Amino acid sequence: MAIRVTILGAGPGGYVAAVRAAQLGADVTVVEKEQVGGTCLNWGCIPSKIMKVTAELLEKFHQAEAFGIRSEGRALPDMEKLMIRKEKVVSAQIKGIEGLLAHHRIALVRGRARVDGPGRVSAVGEDGQVKAWEWDRLIIATGSQPFSVPAFPFDGQRILSSNHILGIETVPESILIVGGGVIGCEFACILSALGARVTVVEALDRMLPLPSVDAGCSKVLEREMKKRRIKFYVNRVVESIVRTGSDLKVTVGPSPFASHLKEKDKAPVTVSVEKALVCIGRSPNTKDIGLSTIGLETDAKGWIPVDDRLQTGVSGVYAIGDVLGPERVMLAHVASTEAMLAAENAMGGDRAMDYTAVPGAIFTMPEVACVGLTDAQARDRGIDARTDTVLFRSLGKAQVLGELAGQASIVSDAGSGRLLGVHIIGPHATDLLGEGALAVSSGLGVADIAGTIHAHPTLAEIMLEAALKAGGKALHG
Amino acid sequence: MAIRVTILGAGPGGYVAAVRAAQLGADVTVVEKEQVGGTCLNWGCIPSKIMKVTAELLEKFHQAEAFGIRSEGRALPDMEKLMIRKEKVVSAQIKGIEGLLAHHRIALVRGRARVDGPGRVSAVGEDGQVKAWEWDRLIIATGSQPFSVPAFPFDGQRILSSNHILGIETVPESILIVGGGVIGCEFACILSALGARVTVVEALDRMLPLPSVDAGCSKVLEREMKKRRIKFYVNRVVESIVRTGSDLKVTVGPSPFASHLKEKDKAPVTVSVEKALVCIGRSPNTKDIGLSTIGLETDAKGWIPVDDRLQTGVSGVYAIGDVLGPERVMLAHVASTEAMLAAENAMGGDRAMDYTAVPGAIFTMPEVACVGLTDAQARDRGIDARTDTVLFRSLGKAQVLGELAGQASIVSDAGSGRLLGVHIIGPHATDLLGEGALAVSSGLGVADIAGTIHAHPTLAEIMLEAALKAGGKALHG
Repeated sequence: MAIRVTILGAGPGGYVAAVRAAQLGADVTVVEKEQVGGTCLNWGCIPSKIMKVTAELLEKFHQAEAFGIRSEGRALPDMEKLMIRKEKVVSAQIKGIEGLLAHHRIALVRGRARVDGPGRVSAVGEDGQVKAWEWDRLIIATGSQPFSVPAFPFDGQRILSSNHILGIETVPESILIVGGGVIGCEFACILSALGARVTVVEALDRMLPLPSVDAGCSKVLEREMKKRRIKFYVNRVVESIVRTGSDLKVTVGPSPFASHLKEKDKAPVTVSVEKALVCIGRSPNTKDIGLSTIGLETDAKGWIPVDDRLQTGVSGVYAIGDVLGPERVMLAHVASTEAMLAAENAMGGDRAMDYTAVPGAIFTMPEVACVGLTDAQARDRGIDARTDTVLFRSLGKAQVLGELAGQASIVSDAGSGRLLGVHIIGPHATDLLGEGALAVSSGLGVADIAGTIHAHPTLAEIMLEAALKAGGKALHG
Repeated sequence: MAIRVTILGAGPGGYVAAVRAAQLGADVTVVEKEQVGGTCLNWGCIPSKIMKVTAELLEKFHQAEAFGIRSEGRALPDMEKLMIRKEKVVSAQIKGIEGLLAHHRIALVRGRARVDGPGRVSAVGEDGQVKAWEWDRLIIATGSQPFSVPAFPFDGQRILSSNHILGIETVPESILIVGGGVIGCEFACILSALGARVTVVEALDRMLPLPSVDAGCSKVLEREMKKRRIKFYVNRVVESIVRTGSDLKVTVGPSPFASHLKEKDKAPVTVSVEKALVCIGRSPNTKDIGLSTIGLETDAKGWIPVDDRLQTGVSGVYAIGDVLGPERVMLAHVASTEAMLAAENAMGGDRAMDYTAVPGAIFTMPEVACVGLTDAQARDRGIDARTDTVLFRSLGKAQVLGELAGQASIVSDAGSGRLLGVHIIGPHATDLLGEGALAVSSGLGVADIAGTIHAHPTLAEIMLEAALKAGGKALHG
């Protein structure tokens, strides 16, 4: 008899685990309480990038004259049409995943899942109907949701989560974004290009203050945000948000994480805005799903601990994706990579998950893309690293596109030349990262990249120039 | 005393060779009769891509409504503004190269160069002044120019070369393009997007009939050209072009290269157009430069034969770039790669040029990018190859961008999994090629690409999907 694998959640982790397990011969059931595709497809990567495409196009419209295009009249965002496009693209992807599950004869149960004890699980549908069945292996992929701050909880109208902002019917005149991380900065750029006056408040000392993001990328992004008239505060937190008539009065105070603040930066500032968007983290969807019935304990914040095989403390029970928490990188492509591995391990495999070459794609304007170690991380580990940076403006193609802002840095081992990290901010950065990710993942060196002919005129030449520089053979730098 | 290196031509080959030789300690002189940057910067890659950026933007503007942008009035090309932008970008690049040469203390001699015998060279400036000097090593990088057909030579007004088309003051109402190679197809897409009615005539049996271009890419391109109402004839040649009033009467007959033509395809067709653009090849700039004075013989067509060290039959004399002819691939990035190597060899090195992983970037709409062997080439060489193709429309990011046409194919050794070639047609194809070029150049296998985490949602995921498919682990295919 086939091994019965149940997967809780049909996000990018859940559905990929389901397909992989089915390919390996399992009898697979997936439970999903909302639409398949998870946060990524319904509330994250995909819909936000659909907004970004329009925002970028609008920005191009405003520059059209310089590119030799005569356009009568103004261009304005039409959020109704944008939302129609969003629905259309998302629905098509949902259908695609459903079709994929059906193709692999995977049972998709609609409802709220609950583990009922070892080997047992049930789901309550919207109609209250309960369906129960058994499993031999369980993969938990229930994901996460936006973290709501008790002091100013989401109301969906004026204080918004990243979910709410994806459904706005008009572009707000002004908006304050709490949190200058990936989601906060992406929406800052998108909303600004769509016409909103944007303010960002970040508790740490830079935009995109993630350890995996090179400080140089933050610097360039901050410069570009300023050019776009996006106002941002660093080392600051939002202390309160008060509703006053049609506006929100936001009090911005010093950050408890900041050190060496000047007196002027300690004084609270008040900002009046139409709406606020809170993007300061996510909470795990691990409550009320019966994990205690199998003796599975989460950590204090609700994240699920796993070993390097992605198995939880309970034999035969695996967890993948956002429920593993921020330490394992909460990204769709990490979830789907973990999914392949967890499904294989659940079916008898024994592979360990390797997080050394996890790429990050940040859809700010310009985009940021990174993989591997930053210069700071390499030095912290005592590696004799060197970092070589090339500016996009030195490339003919960047000049052709009129997209000059940005740079690419290669972090390499000074002795061996082995690539440790690649950090790009600039045009098409997220597409260009493939080469760097392959190099870091495969243990290649700067000589391998320098020895590869790069087509001209392409943006990919920036990797060649950075590698030549790292090898002491810079031509243009 | 430093070795005296003279370089004839300051195109992408010439100026790179100059910098590299200077870095190695040479006393370098470069002679250039026009602006530095060669065909690539002045008459090729760069200006044509500037036109393409505007053409693409215009196409996007026409689709704006579907993307949620309300725009009053029509968008039209403004060729005057476009030409101003072209001049600006090109001049900045010219200044950049001149600055680079100056920085490396390279002497730039303006004039028409002539070799005067072993170790001797002179240049005649525009003012007729002659300057003569001596060399220890000579690198010939004089490039090529558009090939003019004796039956209908360029007149610069109605019968245009690829040089002329880059300076047009208005978009022609209709144009016939002779030749469906790289340049012909690029201009077909650009001019069509700018509003011209375009017809392409190609003597071979497909658009982009280059051995290095995968037949699948040609097929997708032909489909997209049809969607854009670009008319094309294959297995046909232009027999004559007659000027009639304000129009050109072009007679299109069967191709001497075609086999198995149907009767209806043998009958000549007459097409009336405003202008004709002839893109059927290039001629070497090797006449009248005194090569015979050092006993250097070109082949019958004027191309210069070299060994794998890029040395000509004359010791100490090297040749790089377009003057080597189509067999060595006439591309700017090949010239600059050859330049690095020739300069090093001229300065005492002994490296051989390797053409196995030369990438090609074709800026049609959509773009085509390829590196390494096609499926057909691999089979011709008796390799047990497999080709795995994934469609862009299966990627979330392609759906987000609304750019669904296209595909990526990985050609790999069926036994070892080693990558032999990568062929992409689709959005950002030329940026995406970096990963494939690195893989082919470094001898990586499909497992290396499949084992690399690819960021979501990016177009680079197409490489992951194709590699998973090649490894028998396709998820979405």
